[in-house]
Amino acid sequence: MNTFSPDYNENKINNILLSLSKEISSFSNLKNPSISLKKRREFFTKELEDLTFDASRHNISIKTIELSKKLLQEMKTNQFLEAMWSGKVVNITENRQALHPALRGSRDSFFPKDIMNEVSKQKKQMLKIAEGVRNGNIKSHSGKKYTSVLAIGIGGSDLGPRMSVKALTPFKSNIDVRFVSNIDPSELINVTADLDPSKTLIIVSSKTFTTIETLTNAKAAFNWLAKNIGEIGAKNQQYAITSNFNNAKIFGFDTTKILLFSEWVGGRTSIWSSVGLPLAISIGEKLFKEFLLGGYSVDKHMKNEMTNSIPSLMAVLGYIHRNQLGAGSHCIIPYDANLLYFPSYLQQLEMESNGKSVSIKGDCIKSSSVPVVWGLVGTDAQHSFFQMLHQGTDKIPLDILVARESAYADKNKDIIERHRMLVANALGQVEALHKGSKNISKHKNFDGGRSISLISYNKLTPYTLGSLIAIYEYKVIVQSTLWRVNPFDQFGVELGKKYANNLIEGNETIFTNEPNKLENFLNLK
Amino acid sequence: MNTFSPDYNENKINNILLSLSKEISSFSNLKNPSISLKKRREFFTKELEDLTFDASRHNISIKTIELSKKLLQEMKTNQFLEAMWSGKVVNITENRQALHPALRGSRDSFFPKDIMNEVSKQKKQMLKIAEGVRNGNIKSHSGKKYTSVLAIGIGGSDLGPRMSVKALTPFKSNIDVRFVSNIDPSELINVTADLDPSKTLIIVSSKTFTTIETLTNAKAAFNWLAKNIGEIGAKNQQYAITSNFNNAKIFGFDTTKILLFSEWVGGRTSIWSSVGLPLAISIGEKLFKEFLLGGYSVDKHMKNEMTNSIPSLMAVLGYIHRNQLGAGSHCIIPYDANLLYFPSYLQQLEMESNGKSVSIKGDCIKSSSVPVVWGLVGTDAQHSFFQMLHQGTDKIPLDILVARESAYADKNKDIIERHRMLVANALGQVEALHKGSKNISKHKNFDGGRSISLISYNKLTPYTLGSLIAIYEYKVIVQSTLWRVNPFDQFGVELGKKYANNLIEGNETIFTNEPNKLENFLNLK
Repeated sequence: MNTFSPDYNENKINNILLSLSKEISSFSNLKNPSISLKKRREFFTKELEDLTFDASRHNISIKTIELSKKLLQEMKTNQFLEAMWSGKVVNITENRQALHPALRGSRDSFFPKDIMNEVSKQKKQMLKIAEGVRNGNIKSHSGKKYTSVLAIGIGGSDLGPRMSVKALTPFKSNIDVRFVSNIDPSELINVTADLDPSKTLIIVSSKTFTTIETLTNAKAAFNWLAKNIGEIGAKNQQYAITSNFNNAKIFGFDTTKILLFSEWVGGRTSIWSSVGLPLAISIGEKLFKEFLLGGYSVDKHMKNEMTNSIPSLMAVLGYIHRNQLGAGSHCIIPYDANLLYFPSYLQQLEMESNGKSVSIKGDCIKSSSVPVVWGLVGTDAQHSFFQMLHQGTDKIPLDILVARESAYADKNKDIIERHRMLVANALGQVEALHKGSKNISKHKNFDGGRSISLISYNKLTPYTLGSLIAIYEYKVIVQSTLWRVNPFDQFGVELGKKYANNLIEGNETIFTNEPNKLENFLNLK
Repeated sequence: MNTFSPDYNENKINNILLSLSKEISSFSNLKNPSISLKKRREFFTKELEDLTFDASRHNISIKTIELSKKLLQEMKTNQFLEAMWSGKVVNITENRQALHPALRGSRDSFFPKDIMNEVSKQKKQMLKIAEGVRNGNIKSHSGKKYTSVLAIGIGGSDLGPRMSVKALTPFKSNIDVRFVSNIDPSELINVTADLDPSKTLIIVSSKTFTTIETLTNAKAAFNWLAKNIGEIGAKNQQYAITSNFNNAKIFGFDTTKILLFSEWVGGRTSIWSSVGLPLAISIGEKLFKEFLLGGYSVDKHMKNEMTNSIPSLMAVLGYIHRNQLGAGSHCIIPYDANLLYFPSYLQQLEMESNGKSVSIKGDCIKSSSVPVVWGLVGTDAQHSFFQMLHQGTDKIPLDILVARESAYADKNKDIIERHRMLVANALGQVEALHKGSKNISKHKNFDGGRSISLISYNKLTPYTLGSLIAIYEYKVIVQSTLWRVNPFDQFGVELGKKYANNLIEGNETIFTNEPNKLENFLNLK
């Protein structure tokens, strides 16, 4: 396995950055957006099948985008992607490949053959279990059909399945799939309160099988099962999903009930792997495969037209807002109640990937890297923080996502009409945020000029969700090349764990000059 | 009703701001936090009953805080609060009082007598209904005890009850209280999917009874009930909560089933009013009154020691980070799975209140106002975006909240031990974020120096939740005086509504040079 090591031409890079900064400072707000918008749309709108990415409402010139494309060339973005796809070591601090796109590829796709064989085997095993649980061939210890799944994991082993199961609610089976992640005992207590242990399957996902939250919850969930159906029964009703077979076995899992995924799969992109089991149980093999295909359509899009791709345009727009216009955050508003966890999902994907300040060469980077990524579903957000987006002192860039048709559209006319109102709200906000509205009464004045990317698609199907996730994944990777950071490691999560463990074990040397032992703090009354 | 109109001494204000900025730029990171922390704690730690606010881990000097207190004097913060409590018009753009603290006061509290009479009557009526639903005296149309509540509202009429019902899960009755807010039909479909209409009470909250989401969902929910139990039955199983009796009546509510709250109650502080009915049904009259008392304890705290209060210190710390240190956002991490919606609740409270750029005198303010407020429960957040908090390029200030004892602590030793691990994680992160850890391998290096406020309390009871909410309410009000904005209006939500309505009605003049009618957009395939 070769390691990817880019060779930068710093002079060229500096020249482009200089031109960029000149162009941006000379380009003031659009003079007359209603006239220029049509022309801008030709340049700023990109399509991928039925998905439209419309960035015409950005206070950014066409020349800025052209300069940014040159920057991508100099940052060797294409070479990075090719290196990634071909199985080179691109995660250099951990000396690993990053081949998660291969998880959604077919045998004839452009990933290494040996990788595809590995993936195919894992996928087959996982989907067989999913179908077995769905059709009742895989039964509970007492021979009943499972009616619920309790999925245990945290971070990358939780957010993917949690987000996508919720997102695809209109396609779900009658198996109730629930999630527990937090070490706070409240969550497991609440989630299991009305579950029938004799019909509940437990799925424990942990890449290393060392994560304290997951192991603690797995143990507590096992005890809950065992109390009701006995230890042998409990052992029969649990699967482990991991990259570390041995750790799962030592923890107590039956070796026939351990599903593997490869070590080169990062937690935050693991939804495509065996970690997707809760989703596969919820929507079934056929739709899970469509979900994968939707993701793979973006791999092909990137392979064929990287510089002109939707992810690259998103990456560049975000980069300009962050590094040239000083944006401290980026807001995500899906107009879809089922995309409830999508902002949280992207928050992890973007902030854990690019929340770094050290370059892949090991030196401190000279610019800001990832901003805060946050958001909420619309229309709720309109009645919460939109006040600040419209009239606050910062201009915060937004992604607004909306489906032209409700995933429940076959139901009745009333639903179609309410979905129409939802879409009108999404478009109305896009217009209001960008266009504004003058009023001499200043507290009723709207400056407008907010930058919005409008992402629309026919319907939120498994295929579309797969595409959306993959689009943001590539946005993140492209941005990592602009910021020169490694998007695949996460050393920043280690120190807090260390301090926490010291406290749990009664070590007195931390939390100095405080109630300096955990017990002192807990006994403060 | 008098209008409050402060008289500023701009010279004095400018001098303080100058000194502040000098002090902050000369105060670098703490040289040796392990030595100075004890001393700092004496100054930076404040207590209110069992609640401790510990801001010792801020890179801010004691002198900075002292200067800020002088600033509060010059900004007439105390006079503003006194004016508010005494019923003066402090919400000047809407020509209204802002007396929400009176909702939690007793008859002998320091609010106007006539207001207290009004409040007392409304509270009595609301609590009688809550108890009736709980004990079965108020029955469904077919004479059954209610087993579920469907609460419909959005923004301020939703987030308060939604957040607090979830927060106080350990105290809830066996009545299943659910919420619907989004105009997206998905939400109502999913939430009602497994509800029994013959035992479900509908509560519709809308201050003006004109909010399109709420009226649309109320109509759809009514139709769902009517289809199952008939129109007369449906009418019997619904309450309206509003400031506009007439609009609720015209909409179709039985006049005996309309609960009022006063016009001077802002949506985002309405949880203390009749809008709290879903919470009162969930936890009962006795605990709802404790919730109010917890809020009122903070009113007394502010009345007695405004300058030295917890909310004032929070406000000043936030102000310094925002206006002197350039923070674009503020992060909220409750280590409590039941505080799931607390970050969203504060997001609305802070950003809708202070997301403005026009002063109460009507001119543009000269500084930044509210930053983005965002967050997630711990420990989940640790496995998501904490990477960026630890090693990203921005230093983002945080509030970390944690209870010393689980609200489920009476259950068993296992729960106590898991809660202990939860607390260790909260404290471990505080330590790691502030202290950092040097490493010559730069990608394993932690600079530390992040500013953290640690908020801890014995247990998340209704009383404590009341206190926490009121603390943030006053933080927001104190900050509004620093930024000179009116924290009680929300004109920024109007323009988007207008554009959306134009689109719904088929007006072609908006979304220019786009698919310029809503139908064109919807039919794009």
